[in-house]
Formats: sequence, structure tokens, C-alpha cells
Amino acid sequence: MDRIFLKNITLDGRQVDIFISDGIFTSITPHSCETPLAAEGAEIVDCSGKTAMPGFVNMHTHAAMTLMRGIGEDMCLSDWLDHIWAIEAHLDEPFIYWGTKVAALEMIKTGTTAFNDMYWFSPIARKAAEEVGLRNLVSFTFLDNFDPSAAEHQKESCIAMHETVPSWGPRSSFAVSIHSVYTVSEPLILWVTEYARKHGLKIHVHIAETEKEVVDCRKAHGGLSPVEYLDSLGVLGPDVIAAHTLWLSDKDIEILGSRKVNCVHNINSNLKLASGNFFKADELAAAGANICLGTDGCASSNNLDMLEAMKTTAIVQKAMRHDPAALPLHDLLKMATANGAKALGANSGKIEEGYEADLQIIDTDSTFFLSPGPFLANFVYSAHSDCIVSLISGGRFVMRDRKVPAEREILEGGRAELELLKNIDK
Amino acid sequence: MDRIFLKNITLDGRQVDIFISDGIFTSITPHSCETPLAAEGAEIVDCSGKTAMPGFVNMHTHAAMTLMRGIGEDMCLSDWLDHIWAIEAHLDEPFIYWGTKVAALEMIKTGTTAFNDMYWFSPIARKAAEEVGLRNLVSFTFLDNFDPSAAEHQKESCIAMHETVPSWGPRSSFAVSIHSVYTVSEPLILWVTEYARKHGLKIHVHIAETEKEVVDCRKAHGGLSPVEYLDSLGVLGPDVIAAHTLWLSDKDIEILGSRKVNCVHNINSNLKLASGNFFKADELAAAGANICLGTDGCASSNNLDMLEAMKTTAIVQKAMRHDPAALPLHDLLKMATANGAKALGANSGKIEEGYEADLQIIDTDSTFFLSPGPFLANFVYSAHSDCIVSLISGGRFVMRDRKVPAEREILEGGRAELELLKNIDK
Repeated sequence: MDRIFLKNITLDGRQVDIFISDGIFTSITPHSCETPLAAEGAEIVDCSGKTAMPGFVNMHTHAAMTLMRGIGEDMCLSDWLDHIWAIEAHLDEPFIYWGTKVAALEMIKTGTTAFNDMYWFSPIARKAAEEVGLRNLVSFTFLDNFDPSAAEHQKESCIAMHETVPSWGPRSSFAVSIHSVYTVSEPLILWVTEYARKHGLKIHVHIAETEKEVVDCRKAHGGLSPVEYLDSLGVLGPDVIAAHTLWLSDKDIEILGSRKVNCVHNINSNLKLASGNFFKADELAAAGANICLGTDGCASSNNLDMLEAMKTTAIVQKAMRHDPAALPLHDLLKMATANGAKALGANSGKIEEGYEADLQIIDTDSTFFLSPGPFLANFVYSAHSDCIVSLISGGRFVMRDRKVPAEREILEGGRAELELLKNIDK
Repeated sequence: MDRIFLKNITLDGRQVDIFISDGIFTSITPHSCETPLAAEGAEIVDCSGKTAMPGFVNMHTHAAMTLMRGIGEDMCLSDWLDHIWAIEAHLDEPFIYWGTKVAALEMIKTGTTAFNDMYWFSPIARKAAEEVGLRNLVSFTFLDNFDPSAAEHQKESCIAMHETVPSWGPRSSFAVSIHSVYTVSEPLILWVTEYARKHGLKIHVHIAETEKEVVDCRKAHGGLSPVEYLDSLGVLGPDVIAAHTLWLSDKDIEILGSRKVNCVHNINSNLKLASGNFFKADELAAAGANICLGTDGCASSNNLDMLEAMKTTAIVQKAMRHDPAALPLHDLLKMATANGAKALGANSGKIEEGYEADLQIIDTDSTFFLSPGPFLANFVYSAHSDCIVSLISGGRFVMRDRKVPAEREILEGGRAELELLKNIDK
């Protein structure tokens, strides 16, 4: 395991030395010119002029869809789905492997050290993420379209995947995904929930993304909203990661809060797909929910950049609440880091002794940081993710000076998969 | 004057060679292995794998305020203004010079080749912009706060500035700014308009940025909205550049359209300051207005990145119209380039023979462009401005391979001004 000594780095406005060993922040001390005995033999990295930030935690994405971005732009949803489905019908392991690798490369270049994935062929996605060094939660996705035989087949496949893939963890975990209330039958939702609780697995689910979803659910389930319906089935709890949660009643917010659900906002996807409404960040947090941030998949939001998602989230919250003081920067930062880590059950998301060493190194030598304002304002509102020059994930450098070791190979692998896609379109 | 031959660059999906001389796109021809006779002696730049885009035109900013970004974040407007005014009371020429240079550096690094500035000490701002090679429209800003003696003083200062600064143009022009209907008296608005028309100067004005501005204007001027009021004074015409135009009635839209006013949208500022409402892009364009894009000053929107402004504009238009097909990419691109050039009266904003040579060179070798979708979707929705590797403004390289010649000197000059600011705060 790597041993790294980050010398003279800025952390919360103070100059510190950070010693990382066994994947953990072992010591964080005021900067001194001496290297402590404990750090002898460690790689010493001079970080003068650089600032430390926790790695981002992207709490909702469909990683391999990175290879589908830009398909059907400026189109209505039904035309767009035709394009996506034509490709998804041909998904195979190499596509998932290279799609996830391209996604992981993009996440690394934009400061993300952990992500929560909902897609297919999860062991392959996990392999891709592990090879480049990102913490990941991958899932078996249930989507039976109310077909009992599909449900049976998916249960068997899930059990097989869960049991046969060796050594999940410590930075790669297995979860179950319930795609949504409009694509998964009630018996299957119940089975998945029971299976998850029995095995201590997180449950990842799309909830209340569109108004139609809510209207249809109320019609189908005796007036219950998606939140009420899932709660009536015993699904909701602190082990649930709920993507979107946009179209919520006051009662929905109360339920999500009291069940301590992890609610993931995906601002760019919501705006670009015109999902309507806006995320009730303050109300959900006040009710007791754990609010997190995600990017969604690249086919809808078009990139995996959490820093961009932070800025858009902040300014849209201010605009929609008619209050320039809405969603202060420190709360926003928690959404993108510590809250996500908490949802994953990870001991990370903070730069503190004893936490897992997930850390961005920021270069502030640009116009974006030339300001009398605080670092965090410049980082979120002015800068772009190319200010993130190096990234440590689980105690190891996954990017140094903007270079990711496998970058060339990943771009070429992704490009080869895109060539194959062209044949599908024909 | 530089002579440049861009070899094998992608333009609208075709491989071409672009010959630039005397600041103009002299010839654009299908790529050939031969270098034409006309280009002999020119600097030959191999652009294989790179894509050409017109330079961005930032149609509304307060450039020197770049040094004030990050002041008073997450605060309400009145607290924020206290901070800004404390600094503005101490403005001097060095602050404007270095503030504008820092702004110009940031614009260059984000692909902008021309900008429309509304601030103080305009000849100094113009000098800063010219030294780094950006086209600029700078103005004398009128803001008398209804004080007749201030109005007289400003008229004299404007005339002196206009007459004594030598050789405005061809890529640097002088304009007049009417700050707003709530800060400039009617006699002064009339005088400025007459002066502008007599001398062929553009008129730059903030219009209908907030609901309060509209409500107060209707109270003060017999029920007239800011648009109606300015129109009743004969101000509005195709030589007017109107920033914001957010709070508009149907009648306002009709007037702005029939007068062919240039309406500048500043999405990030509008969202972050919670100005409310949203820009009626389609309606204004359909009525006949020329819709453009700007960033506003860095004290409100926090950077000068037009590519970021394009993405936010697009996704917010889609969201607010509940239509993922709203504001197609080609219309958006025109807002950020050709429409702005038209508003400036510049023969630029397009990569066509005979146009001024303002051009971005894009490197597509990254995950952001690894997609089956069109280049423009990847550029706007996925990539960041660091994909703009080189920039030609007025036929000259102002950035090559992300390097701007005066970058180090500008950052140091800006930093020295920030040190002086600290003393002001004390």
C-alpha cells in the first residue's frame, strides 16, 4: 500500500502536512519543515500553493452510458428513447467495460473518488472502476416490466451475481436497484427489499423524477404517490438511495425525512430533460433526509463533472427560492462529499485523521482564484474541474498533474466501442 | 500583420485549410496536401484532429470587476452592495488596468475574442484589452442618480473622453452606457441618446433586470414599463444593447422586436442573484430582436466563461419551457457568436471568407468528445473551456496550446491590486 506525505498543503485556510498510509489519513498536522519519523520512506509531495479538498462522491449515475452521450440531442423524450434502446439492445461486456472505464477516467479528471452506479453487467463495471482505483457501489438492476417470468429470471441472476463474484469490498460493494415504481412489479419490489435487508445491501431506486410518474402511480395504487407507495411496501429506510425525488408533496418530504432516506439531486439531468419542478434541498434536509448530489448518466446530463453540478445546483436553488443566500457553499460541499460517503456507508468524504484518503489537490494559480473572496466560492462558482490537478483515491494517486496512467488506453478502448456502435445504427 | 495557414482543421464536419491574412479569413478551401502559393511565407499550423469554432462574443460584462469576484457570497443584495461600494469608492486607473487585463486573460482562456464592457475609466480598459488582442466596445457610463450637477459633469467628461482618446477602432470602439432607468435622469437619458445618434455610437443599457425595477418604473412614469419608458424617449433602436431584459410584458417584447434591439441574456448572473423570471429567447427572436449572450461581471456571475453560459442557458430554457427540444444548439451558438458580432457592428462571428479572423481551435482528444453525438453537443453540453487550446483574435494568435504570452505578468499585476484591496477593507 502506498505511503504518501503531502507537505505544506492548504486545508481550510491552514498550512498542514498530511500523512497517508494504509489508505487512511494517518496524521494531519500543522506544516513543519521537518518530516516526521512516521513518514520516513513515504513519497514526499511538495504541495506548496496547492489546496486540499475531499474527493467528490457521485451518488447517481449510469456509468457505461458515457459512450452514448450526445445521442438524440434537442429531441423529445420518445425519439431519444428510440435511439438509446436501439443501442441498449446490443449491450455486451466489452461495451460495459470500456464505457465504465471512460466514465471512470472522466470522473477522475473531475475530482470524483467514489460513485454509485445503476446499470447492467455490474461485475464488469466494478472491474473497470477498480482497475483505475475508484470506490464504487454497483448493483443488480431489477426491471421486470410487470412480467412474472422476467422477475423470476432476474431474481436468479441477482443471486448468482451476488454469490459468485468474489470479494466484494472494501472499496467496491454490491447493491440492488429497483428501477422505478413504473417498471417493477410489486411482488418483485417486495422480494428485492427482503433480499437487500437480509444481506445488508443498499437499495438504489429512481423516485418521483417526473410529474407523470407521480400521476400514474396515484392512479395505479389507490392515490398513493411513489414515496407513499414504496413506504407502504416497507422499502424506505436509511439504506435506500433515491435518485431525483423532484415531484414531492409535503407528506412525501416528511416520509423521506423520517425514514432517513438518501435523496440524490441530479440538477443537469433534471434541467436538460425538462423534468420540471425543483429539488427541495432545504425541506428534505430539515425533515431528516440525507441530501446528496449526482450527475445521472451522460446520455441525459452530458458529463460526470460534480463541480459543474455543484455550481448549477447552487444557482438554481438561489433562483427558484428568490434568495441569493439559499444553499450556502458549505452545505453544498457536504452534498457533494460527506453526505454521499455517508449514504455509501463509507468512512470517507472528509479530510480528517482516521478517514479514508480520498483527496483532490487544487491548483489555484489561475484567474479563477485571483479574488478577495473565499477559496470555496472561487472553486465552485468560478473555476472548472481542470483546476483539480491531482487526485488520491483510497490512499493512492489516480491522477498526477492532470495525467491518468491508463488515459491513452482507455480513450482508444472507448473509441473502438464507438466504431462498433456505428454498425448497430445501420 | 500575421499570415497564418491552418492546415487540415475540421470545420462543420469537413476537413479544410484556412488562410488568414490582414486579420481576415482570406480563403477557406477543402484540405489539400499542397500549400497554395498565396500562403507562401505564412506560418503553417498543422491542425489535424482539431476543430475550428468562431470566437465567442461576450455582449455584457463589467470587466475590471473580475478582481471583486467572490466578495459577499451567499449574501443578500444589500449586504453585497455594501462590499462592492466600499471598493468602488477607491477605484483608480491601475485597478481598472489590471482588472481588465485579468478579465481579458480569462476571456482568452475561455474562447472569447470580443467583449462589450460597461465600467469606468474606459480608455484604460480599452488599452488593457488591446494589449492582449481582444476586440472591445468600451463605454462612458452615465449614472447621475438624478443629480443635475452630476449630469453636467458626466456630459463634459464623456465628450472629453470621446474626443481626446485617439484612434478608436477598428477593433476597439467607444459607446455610451445609460446605467438604468432607476439611476439616470430623463434629461440625461435624452442628452445621451442624442449624443450617441449624432456620433454613431452604440447605447448600452441595463433593462428590466428585476421585478422591482419594473414596478418602480411604472410608478414613476405613469404606468410605463422600462421598455415602454425608454421607447417613449426615443432611445430604443438597432444601435441599443440591452442587458438582461428579463421582466418583460408581451408589449415590451413587441417593442424590443420592432425596434430591433440587441437583447443580452446573462443566465448565471440572473440565477445567482435570484433576479427571477427567465429570458424569453424564442419570443424576442420571433418578434425581431437580436438575442445575444453575456456573462455579466465576475462580482455577480463569477466568471467570464461563455461556454459555461451556453450550457446553463440551454438547459434552463429547456427546463422553464418544459421542452427538452427548446433552444437548439445552432441557435444557441449564434447567440454566443454571430448575433453578438452583429450587435457590435463587427464583420465577424462566422468562419467564412471575408470575415474577421476570430477563431477557436478545439482539441477533441478527451472523454468529453468520445461520443456518437455531434461535435456541437459535446462541445456545449459535455466539455469545458479547457478544450479550447488556441485562440486567434483579429488574425493573430492570442493563445497557443493554452499559453497566453503575458499570463504570468497579468496574474502578478492582478495579485498586487488585490493586496491593495485588503487595505481598503481595513
